Amino acid sequence: MKKLITVLLAFASALFAEAETLESPNGRLKMNFQLEEGGIPTYTLSYDGKLVIGKSRMGFRLDNSGLYDYFEMVRIMRERHDDSWSPVWGEESLIRNHCNEMYVCLRQTSSNRYMALRFRLFDDGLGFRYEFPDEGNLVYFVIRNELTEFAMTGDHKAWWIPGDYDTQEYDYTESRISEIRSLLRDAVSPNVSQTVFSDTGVQTALQLKTDEGIYINLHEAALVNYPAMHLEYDDATGIFRTHLTPDPNGDAAYMQAPCTTPWRTIIVADDARDILASRITLNLNEPSRIEDTSWIKPCKYIGVWWEMITGKSEWSYTYDLKSVHLGQDDYTKLRPHGRHGATTDNVKKYIDFAAENGFDAVLVEGWNIGWEDWFGHLKDYVFDFVTPYPDFDLDGIREYAASKGVKMIMHHETSGSPVNYERHLDQAYRFMKENGYDTVKSGYVGDIIPKGNNHYNQWMINHYMYCLEKAAQYQIMVNAHEAVRPTGLCRTWPNLIGNESARGNEYQGTNGSKPFHETVLPFTRLIGGPMDYTPGIFETDISKINPKSSVHANFTLANQLGVYVVMASPLQMAADLPENYRRFPDAFQFIKDVALDWDESIYLEAEPGAYVTVARKAKGTGQWFVGNVTGKADHVSVISFDFLDKGKEYVATVYSDAPDAHYRTNTQAYQVRQYRCNAKSVLRQKAVEGGGFAIAFTEYTPTHKKLKKL
Amino acid sequence: MKKLITVLLAFASALFAEAETLESPNGRLKMNFQLEEGGIPTYTLSYDGKLVIGKSRMGFRLDNSGLYDYFEMVRIMRERHDDSWSPVWGEESLIRNHCNEMYVCLRQTSSNRYMALRFRLFDDGLGFRYEFPDEGNLVYFVIRNELTEFAMTGDHKAWWIPGDYDTQEYDYTESRISEIRSLLRDAVSPNVSQTVFSDTGVQTALQLKTDEGIYINLHEAALVNYPAMHLEYDDATGIFRTHLTPDPNGDAAYMQAPCTTPWRTIIVADDARDILASRITLNLNEPSRIEDTSWIKPCKYIGVWWEMITGKSEWSYTYDLKSVHLGQDDYTKLRPHGRHGATTDNVKKYIDFAAENGFDAVLVEGWNIGWEDWFGHLKDYVFDFVTPYPDFDLDGIREYAASKGVKMIMHHETSGSPVNYERHLDQAYRFMKENGYDTVKSGYVGDIIPKGNNHYNQWMINHYMYCLEKAAQYQIMVNAHEAVRPTGLCRTWPNLIGNESARGNEYQGTNGSKPFHETVLPFTRLIGGPMDYTPGIFETDISKINPKSSVHANFTLANQLGVYVVMASPLQMAADLPENYRRFPDAFQFIKDVALDWDESIYLEAEPGAYVTVARKAKGTGQWFVGNVTGKADHVSVISFDFLDKGKEYVATVYSDAPDAHYRTNTQAYQVRQYRCNAKSVLRQKAVEGGGFAIAFTEYTPTHKKLKKL
Repeated sequence: MKKLITVLLAFASALFAEAETLESPNGRLKMNFQLEEGGIPTYTLSYDGKLVIGKSRMGFRLDNSGLYDYFEMVRIMRERHDDSWSPVWGEESLIRNHCNEMYVCLRQTSSNRYMALRFRLFDDGLGFRYEFPDEGNLVYFVIRNELTEFAMTGDHKAWWIPGDYDTQEYDYTESRISEIRSLLRDAVSPNVSQTVFSDTGVQTALQLKTDEGIYINLHEAALVNYPAMHLEYDDATGIFRTHLTPDPNGDAAYMQAPCTTPWRTIIVADDARDILASRITLNLNEPSRIEDTSWIKPCKYIGVWWEMITGKSEWSYTYDLKSVHLGQDDYTKLRPHGRHGATTDNVKKYIDFAAENGFDAVLVEGWNIGWEDWFGHLKDYVFDFVTPYPDFDLDGIREYAASKGVKMIMHHETSGSPVNYERHLDQAYRFMKENGYDTVKSGYVGDIIPKGNNHYNQWMINHYMYCLEKAAQYQIMVNAHEAVRPTGLCRTWPNLIGNESARGNEYQGTNGSKPFHETVLPFTRLIGGPMDYTPGIFETDISKINPKSSVHANFTLANQLGVYVVMASPLQMAADLPENYRRFPDAFQFIKDVALDWDESIYLEAEPGAYVTVARKAKGTGQWFVGNVTGKADHVSVISFDFLDKGKEYVATVYSDAPDAHYRTNTQAYQVRQYRCNAKSVLRQKAVEGGGFAIAFTEYTPTHKKLKKL
Repeated sequence: MKKLITVLLAFASALFAEAETLESPNGRLKMNFQLEEGGIPTYTLSYDGKLVIGKSRMGFRLDNSGLYDYFEMVRIMRERHDDSWSPVWGEESLIRNHCNEMYVCLRQTSSNRYMALRFRLFDDGLGFRYEFPDEGNLVYFVIRNELTEFAMTGDHKAWWIPGDYDTQEYDYTESRISEIRSLLRDAVSPNVSQTVFSDTGVQTALQLKTDEGIYINLHEAALVNYPAMHLEYDDATGIFRTHLTPDPNGDAAYMQAPCTTPWRTIIVADDARDILASRITLNLNEPSRIEDTSWIKPCKYIGVWWEMITGKSEWSYTYDLKSVHLGQDDYTKLRPHGRHGATTDNVKKYIDFAAENGFDAVLVEGWNIGWEDWFGHLKDYVFDFVTPYPDFDLDGIREYAASKGVKMIMHHETSGSPVNYERHLDQAYRFMKENGYDTVKSGYVGDIIPKGNNHYNQWMINHYMYCLEKAAQYQIMVNAHEAVRPTGLCRTWPNLIGNESARGNEYQGTNGSKPFHETVLPFTRLIGGPMDYTPGIFETDISKINPKSSVHANFTLANQLGVYVVMASPLQMAADLPENYRRFPDAFQFIKDVALDWDESIYLEAEPGAYVTVARKAKGTGQWFVGNVTGKADHVSVISFDFLDKGKEYVATVYSDAPDAHYRTNTQAYQVRQYRCNAKSVLRQKAVEGGGFAIAFTEYTPTHKKLKKL
């Protein structure tokens, strides 16, 4: 069902100073490409006739020359795309790809080097990338920096985190873009690996809002064989400039024509819900490279994890070692310190709990030797990924889990040592398959070795891809933590079922995050793909788990239920300890019931920092769920149930904040109510600051006849 | 048969300013260790009562502090070693390890950090290394530079090449050490990857000679998990200072106690032959880590190689590609340029020649796809190590070679991309074993990727070791070119049967080397282990092979025969083209006959730069061979055959320069003469500048009765 119209315009001579215009299918967005005096490529983007991106330059600084001026147009091609495709998993089962495309091929007259721009203009935004065709004198080249600009047209509001080559795990700041400089250093919280590069550098996806109420989102799609992009704000000119993560020598990207850059994306909408509904990022990625995807399955899991995060137990096994010499230390001769989390007995308790409550899988961290001094020493051989601690009975656990119908999730902490990981990768993946593990949570904690590399430079981007491709060969699903933020690659590699790449819920167990956090993430981190956010924390007073902790999580229990629907992911954890779920069985029921994969998603309300409310229809069952997270102030949602099948009666089970709930002082004040309802029903539901609610819809049966009608 | 006497002296208080002395077993060498005022460790070395190394400091500059002063002695241990061991292959079948040892443990009082020195004093020199015990506050640390000094006691003569982080392929200079600064830049010849770091930096092994006729050789042994050492001459103070190859950030080594550095070696002799006879480098390495060594076999080989070096044929297959996209280019659809060397037909001709002449194996370079743009583009995925060119019939060649009883030698050019090589290593080694290849020649041409690394920094040292260990697992022998210079590691890993790591004979096919080159290499490059020097070039006028070449090799044909004995190696190539061997069948006979592995070696004469004459007794057969290479002037050897069995008659076949031979104008003027001889015989034999001779001894039989008696 692909319709396309191609118009090829070949020009015999230079066309500089001539403008080329592209319109979105509905005509509201208009992109203008122009070669300025001197052959300098620029673009603008307008929405309903008003500029949203002012005149912005394009091009590159190479290691030995400039690739940003003296260009002439040599040909232009136009195409219209209108087709649709089905993801292996996701928020919708059918995604429409509807845009107008313009390809502009430029030649740098002074050097006979070719550089092209491919623009795709959708109704909800623009994507463009650079392409280097197999023509002229550009074959191998080194990009020192990319010069792509995003010129702001006002002092917009922004939801941002500091630009950093090594971490994305910052709390968001809401401010005017002009305030970034004054606020940035205070927005930098400590991390075991971090490299802030500028006082005005921020990360993508960057969510902006103009004073006229236009939402603009800047990110990238299909980050392959190229460094991750940051944005650096030039407050003198009001321009965001591209800043690529460099290699140790300061170069950004090693290129070989023919090749392309990732897409730069600008999502534009006058309703924040349309930002969330945009599928630009996925559409700009290539179709699945995995032919048989039958082995890729959504997964709801629990894990031996939160107890280590909160300090109740430890990843390590012994205090006997001053430092670890892997392969030389005989752990069977060392004294266990008695605080090890990944013991056989403890893991079996989690397996029991998973089996009792219908979870698919159990993750265990700290199962393998080496955790006694696992990061921060610039040591490459930290883990071997195949040797369990003496108190982790690999065979026994494998058999016990199998007997209970529960899968085990593997954990590979690389400790920022990709070369060591690659050396062990085949063996580690084989080991997984031999022991029945189909999914791996990988981690990249600490500075990257060799020193001088960073988490997001081209070399590391290629490492993540190498692991992902190899995992696909082994039919292994990957959930990579501390890896680069996603850019829609899960379309091409649907075995990438999760990423961290932002401040996850784990911070609520150690430092706390701002209570509006989950109302920002859908506009920022989730633009690129799902997050292994690890929600479901019911006990917010961490001292109840670890008396030495004084941390308090900044959300309500009902908020945590809403997250499962708002932050859609094929991989969802119930992160809290089993004993905390046993205390709140009625609320826990929602986590057991909620789906992981969706046929349809409806964005009911959305405002970054304030609230997000989403309705989703489960794939396969057709069951509807609604989730809400509420940010910096109490919020009352008024929700029409018109997404339900007309003429059918339903029961809505509503899990909400109690009226007196509070994200610090009264987090466990929640209500579970049931209503009879149908497509004409409307629910008024309040959520408190840092709160939320969740709704599960089931079919009405006569047993429900005493229920109040909505 | 290990005798040891241990004396443990524990001191309750600081001992600084106190001296500790160690003597060699024969008492001629004396080492003095002293803590100077301020707790600064120093040593001196004297020979027959005369200083050969003046007062020299020891210690380290760490990334965050100094580890060179405020030391006190906390214990001293002394041991005597006298044992012997048998190498898997080498110049002798039994090696004596006879030395006195002193272990001095120091504590830095200001920081409670421990650093020890272990000295081993042999009759022919000193080895010492730093050790970091599992005590005190030093656990993980970063060495910024090592401060070990070698203080010269005069303006010695030196045979040196420029210090470089990336190449050892320089022509040697003979000069006073005071002249290094003025001569160094002219001594730097072009190389595709080179990083000269100083105007007075030189490489090890460095051969020195005092005006009193004392020979001093500085090198290192057991270079493991540490960067390679260079020496930088401070002409103001007359001190050589250690200069380690840094990582991209300028750090040198990442350490984890308990650990050790490599040994620093100072071989000392009043006869240059004792430098060559020294086994210090091997003795300071660990015993073999490979238990079953039955699969490690010496190998004499020919190869499809010299024709590419000389430009007669090419490694590549086609000119159709602007650049290679491995995995995307379909070579079967490209036009061959017709100059490809590794074609099935050509390889079979080499196999035939090997079978006819008793060679063990055939090396083929350029057999695998990717050679069209194989280095210099900072591209990591250059080769996959398993895909042959369309005109290289892998299966047919495998079967043909097997039918002729000839082994094939694999070639893995990494193009300086170790990560790519490691990614393919298991598959590549498996592929070798499946196709009957037991030996690999690996190469590291071009700058190391990721950029900023160098051929000799710690990360690369660990890469070479990783390949070597994995090769041992697959029972594969390794001959690594462009890798770091050897340091006796072939004792521990006897599958390391060859290295290049110096200017090999290949330069004689492209640039020429100085005619004294092979009289220097035994004192420098070969101190660490054997070299895959690729001798046996009979046609020195390269234009006869490739009319476009104007290169002339700087040696005589007889010299090339002498090399096989002088430069002992378990891996020896006959590097010239089969047609050149067919022209000189009598001389070629020596290459066919000469042994590869030895029970005994006698250094008959030696003077660096001038001449080296060695007699060796073949392992197994007991057959004696003599080889001579002559350097910068004609030389007449007077050789007593007293190494032969007493009372037994022999035939000596002498391959020598003709009287009018000349290394440029008359290289193929040689004589083959036979004499009847015995242990009382003496041969007077002249060799010309850049010339040499070789002798093969066979048993006298009555058929030889007409031979002249010597």
